[in-house]
Amino acid sequence: MRVVRPKPLTKTAFARFGEVIETDGAGSFVINDGKATRFHDLAGVDVGAQGGRPAISIFRAKPTSLPFDIAMFERHPLASQAFYPLSGRPWLVVVATDDAGRPGDVEAFVASGTQGVNYARAIWHHPLLALDEVVDFLVVDRVGDGDNLQEFRLDAPCRLES
Amino acid sequence: MRVVRPKPLTKTAFARFGEVIETDGAGSFVINDGKATRFHDLAGVDVGAQGGRPAISIFRAKPTSLPFDIAMFERHPLASQAFYPLSGRPWLVVVATDDAGRPGDVEAFVASGTQGVNYARAIWHHPLLALDEVVDFLVVDRVGDGDNLQEFRLDAPCRLES
Repeated sequence: MRVVRPKPLTKTAFARFGEVIETDGAGSFVINDGKATRFHDLAGVDVGAQGGRPAISIFRAKPTSLPFDIAMFERHPLASQAFYPLSGRPWLVVVATDDAGRPGDVEAFVASGTQGVNYARAIWHHPLLALDEVVDFLVVDRVGDGDNLQEFRLDAPCRLES
Repeated sequence: MRVVRPKPLTKTAFARFGEVIETDGAGSFVINDGKATRFHDLAGVDVGAQGGRPAISIFRAKPTSLPFDIAMFERHPLASQAFYPLSGRPWLVVVATDDAGRPGDVEAFVASGTQGVNYARAIWHHPLLALDEVVDFLVVDRVGDGDNLQEFRLDAPCRLES
C-alpha cells in the first residue's frame, strides 16, 4: 500500500496546490490609526465562473487519527475553496496532482492551528481531516448553479501515517 | 455624554446592519459521507461593485477595555466586510444607523468568541474592538480600485460602558 507521511505545511511546499492562509511571512500594513495590522489579501477567491458568487460558511468536521486510509479525492472545477481552523489546533491537508483527470501523486501536510489553506480551482483534495476532536472551519467558497464537484474513488487506498 | 451599553449579539438585533456568522440557528446539511456538517452560506459577500474582487485577509487587533470613548465611525460604500474572531474570546461590535450621510443612532453588541459579523455595504461601524488581549480576525472584504472608505469623526464622543 502506498504510504504518505504528512510534512509541515509551508507556502513553498503548497504553492502548486493553492495558498497557505497565515500571517507568518505575509505582507501587512497598519490600519485603524495604529490599532490593527492588516495581513493583506492572503488568498484569492476565484468563484465567479458560470455566475458563481462567494459565500462564507462554517464546516464542522468530525475528527480522525493516524494511520488513516485515503480512499477518495474530490475537486471543484469551477472555484477555489478556502478553509481556516477555528480551534487553534493542528489539522491535516491532503492533496494530489492531476494525472489525466484522476488524482496522481499524493502529498500530505500538517497545518498548524494558525494556518488555513485555499485550494486553487480544480485541485484534488481530501475532505477535511480534523485531529483528535471536532473542529469548526470557516470556509469561503462558491455558491451557484453548475457542476462544481467531482469525486474520484481510488483503486487502492493510500495510507497516511505519522 | 451619550452612553451606550453593549447588548448580546443576536441575528435579530443585528439584522438591519448585516449578518451574524454563527452556527447557532443556521441552516445546515451533512457533507463528506457524514464526516462533516456544512452551516451554509452564513453571509453574503457583496464586493463586486466597480470591479472589486473578494479577498481573505487577517486583521490583528490590539485590545481595548471598557469604558471606551467612541470618537469615529467608518463605512465601506462599495462592499460588505466580514470579521470572524480566531481567539475564541468575546469582542465588541459597534454600529450606527445612517442619518443623512452621518452616523446616527449608535448600537453596541458583545459578540461571543464563536460569532462573527458581516457588515452590509455602507453600514457605519467602529473599527475592530478586541477585549483584553490581541486578537486575530479572519476578514473577507473587497480588493480593487474605487473609493471604498468613508470616515466620520463625531462632534462629541459616545461612551461605551459595560
